[in-house]
Amino acid sequence: MKLLITNALIIPMTKEGLSLRGDIGIDGKHIVFVGTGNPSFTADRIIDGSSFLAMPSLVNAHTHLSMGLMRNYKDSLPTLHAWLAEIFPIEEKLTAEDVLLASRLGIIELIQSGCTMFTDMYFEPQSTAQAVIEGGIRGSIGVTLFGALEENKARVEESEKTLSPYLAQAEGRLTLNVAPHAIYTCTQETYQYAADWARQHGRVFHTHLSETKKEVDDCIAETGMTPPAYLAKIGVLQEVKSMLAHCVHLTEEDIKLLKTFDTTIVHNPSSNLKLSSGIAPIASYLNAGISVALGTDGASSNNNLNMFEEMHIASLLGRVVETSGEKTTPYQVLEMATKRGAEALGIGDQIGTLETGKEADLLLIDLKKSHLTPLNDPFSALVYAAQSSDVDTVFCQGKIVMEHRKVCTFDEGQVIEDVQRSWAEVLNR
Amino acid sequence: MKLLITNALIIPMTKEGLSLRGDIGIDGKHIVFVGTGNPSFTADRIIDGSSFLAMPSLVNAHTHLSMGLMRNYKDSLPTLHAWLAEIFPIEEKLTAEDVLLASRLGIIELIQSGCTMFTDMYFEPQSTAQAVIEGGIRGSIGVTLFGALEENKARVEESEKTLSPYLAQAEGRLTLNVAPHAIYTCTQETYQYAADWARQHGRVFHTHLSETKKEVDDCIAETGMTPPAYLAKIGVLQEVKSMLAHCVHLTEEDIKLLKTFDTTIVHNPSSNLKLSSGIAPIASYLNAGISVALGTDGASSNNNLNMFEEMHIASLLGRVVETSGEKTTPYQVLEMATKRGAEALGIGDQIGTLETGKEADLLLIDLKKSHLTPLNDPFSALVYAAQSSDVDTVFCQGKIVMEHRKVCTFDEGQVIEDVQRSWAEVLNR
Repeated sequence: MKLLITNALIIPMTKEGLSLRGDIGIDGKHIVFVGTGNPSFTADRIIDGSSFLAMPSLVNAHTHLSMGLMRNYKDSLPTLHAWLAEIFPIEEKLTAEDVLLASRLGIIELIQSGCTMFTDMYFEPQSTAQAVIEGGIRGSIGVTLFGALEENKARVEESEKTLSPYLAQAEGRLTLNVAPHAIYTCTQETYQYAADWARQHGRVFHTHLSETKKEVDDCIAETGMTPPAYLAKIGVLQEVKSMLAHCVHLTEEDIKLLKTFDTTIVHNPSSNLKLSSGIAPIASYLNAGISVALGTDGASSNNNLNMFEEMHIASLLGRVVETSGEKTTPYQVLEMATKRGAEALGIGDQIGTLETGKEADLLLIDLKKSHLTPLNDPFSALVYAAQSSDVDTVFCQGKIVMEHRKVCTFDEGQVIEDVQRSWAEVLNR
Repeated sequence: MKLLITNALIIPMTKEGLSLRGDIGIDGKHIVFVGTGNPSFTADRIIDGSSFLAMPSLVNAHTHLSMGLMRNYKDSLPTLHAWLAEIFPIEEKLTAEDVLLASRLGIIELIQSGCTMFTDMYFEPQSTAQAVIEGGIRGSIGVTLFGALEENKARVEESEKTLSPYLAQAEGRLTLNVAPHAIYTCTQETYQYAADWARQHGRVFHTHLSETKKEVDDCIAETGMTPPAYLAKIGVLQEVKSMLAHCVHLTEEDIKLLKTFDTTIVHNPSSNLKLSSGIAPIASYLNAGISVALGTDGASSNNNLNMFEEMHIASLLGRVVETSGEKTTPYQVLEMATKRGAEALGIGDQIGTLETGKEADLLLIDLKKSHLTPLNDPFSALVYAAQSSDVDTVFCQGKIVMEHRKVCTFDEGQVIEDVQRSWAEVLNR
């Protein structure tokens, strides 16, 4: 299938401030040109892009997809830790079927907000893998580790086996990662095993880190070190790609330390505010040379999976939190939501920008909206004014997964009904 | 015209935490019942509300409607004052026609995000008044004052004359208020005149106050007092309804002082973040007993007029900024966006809640959305998960101004074209 998008306003995300009006050619899974067309390219389908902005689709670099089940549930508790005490008992009741239904719901939300790749950390990973394949998007499924080494080794080995048929049929859209939950729920040996597994398999390891002041204080009390210093001390951050979700509370020394590793900090501003964890000083991290990606966290601490809203909140917070006067720019936040997430996952050569040879994961955003008029600076427009509901069409690996706001790969009404029924059952268990 | 909405999930905003499933009857401009229906009520039209949440429409308590023209323009400057230096020269070029076109655009944005009442502060008030009448919503139009007394007296007298035919035909949906811009742009006599005018006419006076640290520091340097203390000292806050936009930087003494007056603080969190002004500690103000309403500010410092987004950001910030541990609740933020704005404007007896006898300004929100599934707590859902694009139908004074996302009172495509043309002309002047 050859697709041609004509005369769109293109934000390729290859160079700060670059926008151009032109065509995009897609042949099968790949982008074959961006900007100036190829006269010999004969498309099977032509999409008039003249009222659209085309940009790379978004990467949600930290979520717990199936926590959509607990959306708007036991809200407004004072801290992360008070809230986890309510959530953990519910999670014990969830079945693989509940996780499958909730994963489908989450993938619909992701697609509707322009996201075609996510990094997940949850239970029943085969259910989420199945939903990824059905939904036609990408996922990096984290095998989630809690507690001591032996049970986690068994968990990873079992997941590798269970997930193997899904990996085989996903046409490169599915990968496995390993995700020790947090330093306050996993032993040192679990972390070391996770990092070793990631090194051996050339994969990323993904964890929560320095999310709350309490976590940092407890870590210092127990180990005499901050959480990043502790992970470095036990050899976990060395020679491996790591994704560190949150990092709300880092010291100057933590920042210097993290920039020596192949680490991406994943900023989850909504969740950090909602759980009263704090505001991560992202401009400081970027200016120190640490890569930062963007995530929504789970829908139960957000309370949705809307990456446009997350870009908006990250942009606004990036204007105010720095006492040093450092601020993020709209372009930096767009990078966080696209290529930085792809790079963190080791697939920056496949997606995250619009370039010839990359896979065709992109969005068409409808610019004929009152709240996008006049457009003026398109980068400001995307992070400050645009809504996820402006995303008209979403391509993943060259295929359309949403067109004119209708998700093509799921029956949304049916999924909503299924999740409502499943959640009612969970509450009655 | 008699309208019956059946079997909706109703959030009347009359009592914390109250939601009920039932019917709403509307006869002409007024609500005639909420909850239990009246068997003798024969409706001209019945709307099946079973998949909708019904709530009062929103009140945008601080905006500069026509600044939509400067949306995404000269963004990302370091401070409010640096940005104003770019904006003021552009504003000098605007004509009454530019303001009319931009006001129409703004009213479309307001309606699309569920808002049927706004407080405006801008030039060419007759243009905005005309757009309010055309748009079928409500507006309190502030005659905006800058500089010294004499020119402002003339401005107010002229505006009263110019606006009088609009006020006569607006069926109560239009009021005039007086809006001295700020203490750094208006003289003491201008403020005193504005407060006197508001007292004499039983209207509100509306100003920016304590928006930035610089404003506070300059005021202390010049007068020896903080901005609220200065306004109190010159007799401006006494015996009058005042709306004080921003109040990002108040002292403990300011809070004690303001609670002795009939003052509403208008929180504009997006604009305060975007202009790097800071984060207003709203829970402290609420807990001190000061009323707080919500506004978007102008679209050039936001960059839209989306009250759902503003509720979301206010809710998230309300969870994190208080060192005292005080936090806002979702219900408080919903009050800020509805009844508190109506009360501030002196029309709390007409709109702001769903009650028998009040005018029918309400919203139907489509709950059949993935990001609202499961719904669980509807108050959390509204402030944390809902999008303005979930607003399906908007009623103002008993009339439908938007149905199934289509604004009924304007041709949106035409307005978008008109504004694009007008803005291109402004840039070439």
